[in-house]
Amino acid sequence: MVQCVVQFASPTVDQWQTATVISLGILDRSSAIPLHEQIAHGLRAAVLSGRVGVGDAVPSTRALAADLGVARGTVVAAYEILAGEGYLLTTPGGGTVVADIVVQPAVVRPAVVRPAVVRPAVGRAASVATPETVPDAQVDLSPGRPRTEGVADAAWRSAWRRAAALDPEPDVDDARGDGVLRAEIARHLGRTRGLDVAADDVLVTAGTSDAMLLTLVSLRSANARKPLRVGIEDPGYPRVRMILRRLGIEPVPIPVRVKSGLDLDALARQRGLDALIVTPNHHYPLGSRLDADQRARLLTWATREDVLVIEDDYDSEFPHGRAPLPPLSLLDPSRVVLIGSLSKVLTPAVRCGWVVASGAAGERIRATREDLDLPVSLVQQHALALYLAEGDLARHAARRRRDYRHRRRLLLEAFADLPDVELTATDGGLHAVVLLRGRDVVAEREIVAEVAARGIRVEPLSRYAVSQAASPLPAGIVFGYAAPSTVVLLEAVGVMIDVLRAHVDR
Amino acid sequence: MVQCVVQFASPTVDQWQTATVISLGILDRSSAIPLHEQIAHGLRAAVLSGRVGVGDAVPSTRALAADLGVARGTVVAAYEILAGEGYLLTTPGGGTVVADIVVQPAVVRPAVVRPAVVRPAVGRAASVATPETVPDAQVDLSPGRPRTEGVADAAWRSAWRRAAALDPEPDVDDARGDGVLRAEIARHLGRTRGLDVAADDVLVTAGTSDAMLLTLVSLRSANARKPLRVGIEDPGYPRVRMILRRLGIEPVPIPVRVKSGLDLDALARQRGLDALIVTPNHHYPLGSRLDADQRARLLTWATREDVLVIEDDYDSEFPHGRAPLPPLSLLDPSRVVLIGSLSKVLTPAVRCGWVVASGAAGERIRATREDLDLPVSLVQQHALALYLAEGDLARHAARRRRDYRHRRRLLLEAFADLPDVELTATDGGLHAVVLLRGRDVVAEREIVAEVAARGIRVEPLSRYAVSQAASPLPAGIVFGYAAPSTVVLLEAVGVMIDVLRAHVDR
Repeated sequence: MVQCVVQFASPTVDQWQTATVISLGILDRSSAIPLHEQIAHGLRAAVLSGRVGVGDAVPSTRALAADLGVARGTVVAAYEILAGEGYLLTTPGGGTVVADIVVQPAVVRPAVVRPAVVRPAVGRAASVATPETVPDAQVDLSPGRPRTEGVADAAWRSAWRRAAALDPEPDVDDARGDGVLRAEIARHLGRTRGLDVAADDVLVTAGTSDAMLLTLVSLRSANARKPLRVGIEDPGYPRVRMILRRLGIEPVPIPVRVKSGLDLDALARQRGLDALIVTPNHHYPLGSRLDADQRARLLTWATREDVLVIEDDYDSEFPHGRAPLPPLSLLDPSRVVLIGSLSKVLTPAVRCGWVVASGAAGERIRATREDLDLPVSLVQQHALALYLAEGDLARHAARRRRDYRHRRRLLLEAFADLPDVELTATDGGLHAVVLLRGRDVVAEREIVAEVAARGIRVEPLSRYAVSQAASPLPAGIVFGYAAPSTVVLLEAVGVMIDVLRAHVDR
Repeated sequence: MVQCVVQFASPTVDQWQTATVISLGILDRSSAIPLHEQIAHGLRAAVLSGRVGVGDAVPSTRALAADLGVARGTVVAAYEILAGEGYLLTTPGGGTVVADIVVQPAVVRPAVVRPAVVRPAVGRAASVATPETVPDAQVDLSPGRPRTEGVADAAWRSAWRRAAALDPEPDVDDARGDGVLRAEIARHLGRTRGLDVAADDVLVTAGTSDAMLLTLVSLRSANARKPLRVGIEDPGYPRVRMILRRLGIEPVPIPVRVKSGLDLDALARQRGLDALIVTPNHHYPLGSRLDADQRARLLTWATREDVLVIEDDYDSEFPHGRAPLPPLSLLDPSRVVLIGSLSKVLTPAVRCGWVVASGAAGERIRATREDLDLPVSLVQQHALALYLAEGDLARHAARRRRDYRHRRRLLLEAFADLPDVELTATDGGLHAVVLLRGRDVVAEREIVAEVAARGIRVEPLSRYAVSQAASPLPAGIVFGYAAPSTVVLLEAVGVMIDVLRAHVDR
């Protein structure tokens, strides 16, 4: 056990001249609570107590680690939790200071929040939140939104600054995208997904939607006068249906079961599909994953039926509860087109994604891109190439992975004791699904509306259904847990739980 | 007459300590040669003579203007000519220095080039160029490429730096694009095209191709099962045909005549078209323009036939020989969808354009964009919004306008005496067409190949033809004159003229 003090530097007329010394409390190495959470807990308490002020600088990770006799990474992890929660802020100069928690989104009312967040590992963190703490302000928990605070750090700004200093070329040489960025995307896929992809098989796209549009237009133009039919998951990503509809392609829903995932028997009965769009690694939104046997069955079917498989690998940088499986495209690169993006791991604001395709499908997609033109800014391609090449994306992803896992653990605790409710889809990514046992679509809509009335946006699971008839879905709530600070998230989750409890009591 | 000296500062151990004083020669106010060209001429001679060295700083425009007793704008114009020619370079610090002319593209061999560029207003500038001066290096004179050297100036870099310092939003709120950028595009269209457009009617796109794709997909999905037919100009922009083909839409070629432009009689005979894509302000590539009567006829026909008109306003920031006419969309905003981009006025590297659409067509396009998603990076949208808002695009466009007009004048002189050749399409934009009287497609291809063999890329006019049968096109060469430095351009044009002369002599 270590009793220790932390010295914060406060800005005065001459910067960082005065120091506030606070006690961190006692670190207990025999506790089940990891050391970094204990440190975070102590620092959080110091901030909430007002013993340190807004703008005070925390000690360097190196200094604090030495003081506490822990590894430096332990302190880094503690700071990241607090940054994720909104208590700490990295300044443009590179220092880390106490954030002005009061200027967080209006939903945060520190006086009420404090008890909840000071003991996240003890009670159900969010259960103390009360309706009064959520004013009109909207907390957007719609799924798919990553946490972007802190993305614009020194490495990010440096990459853009250098990219903007180049004279912007007068023409777009390669419709597949900048060669350096394609090589970096291939490297990223090797590191995060175990893929051995040639840069030549990578096309840069303006995100997943553009990748989907491109792939479907290439399919459309390869089958000029024939009506096209494309299998999609039911429930599934709504935008896929919209893009198909806009291109005049018939979507064919294939049921996805809550427990067992894509219904491969139903798929096996399908004849005459031209393509199948799937999320085999973390079904959107239910969270199931195809295991090795299911993958083999799917590909056997696709080969027999000569169907192009479009694998939407949308959030696999964030495996949580289990080791990730390699993408389908590793098993049959000529049959499977892999689509991914930086939207979840970094931010959708960059609108940058990729298609990995080889063989005849790859040729068709490349030729289609030549005709349609590349929609991705070269300035941005250069900036992202630098950001990836220098390891900054990998570092950012590692930070977010820790932050999201911490959030996921808090959520699992918060929902653990709730009757007739199951929190699912938590084995990866940045969203979760609350399944509502014995409730129907009417109750689902009511709950979403009541949560919305209290300033929090979540989505009904039925929104993802293609055809209720084909695949009777349980009632459920889909929400993202990555975008707001942990403080705001926990309070919003508290409101959701209040609403759910009230519904049970009816 | 003013005899004057110019003081260049040379970098040494302590920057800008030594000064080189050179004589500019005599300014002749009674000469037909404008003062700024005389100043440019004198400075150019000083650089070429080696009297000033690479990296030497030129005097400030204010100081030189005072020394010479001319308006400051006159010196600015002279510097811009020299920057356009590659002799001067703006440094990141904001100073203007003598460029390292030897590191220009390999085609420049100063020893040979000098006589030509020292007297641009005297003889046909490029006529001294000889085959030996063009080695393997490729000079790309394919049309549509703006000059991008110097775009990355202090204002540009500052806009990107500030945009990259913002945390990149976790979601895309408005599929039409950032509100500030839309307002700035509306203002840009007001200033350059006399349009009074509401920001609400502007959609940001990833360039012209994306705008075209979006508009055509919206047309496609509004007419789900019906085969679509869209009128296009013949000759015309090849990419339009490719996009139509990829979407399974039938292109219907409407002839464009060299002298009279779009054949409105042929158009009037058309029935059942769903849309018409035109370049009424500067036909691509022939350069003709629809006059007020022709515009009225076109719109009367479109209204009678209920055809959507898609106006590709691709380079109208650069009117040269005549005052610009306002876009078609001003006459009937609900019938005409206006498409434009920053590709010509700034650089295609940003992949940023717009669709201006109101009424039912506007609603359909907006709804389509909601479904397809916005492909344009928000970081870039913020950077461009700042760049436009602070007047930097307008300043850049003004500089380029002067530079391109200067180039155009040199071209008109260079081609003036050539037998059986007519330089056309020069009333605006950044490309020109050499019409070859009495020659056929075979000769056209031969000339393009011979020019290419000498390291210069130009395009045969026949490349733009949709159907040779429908619209017998004269033989011609299409080339851009904006991208390379003026020095390189003039030498390349000299090679073209050599090849053309050799063909006449056969």
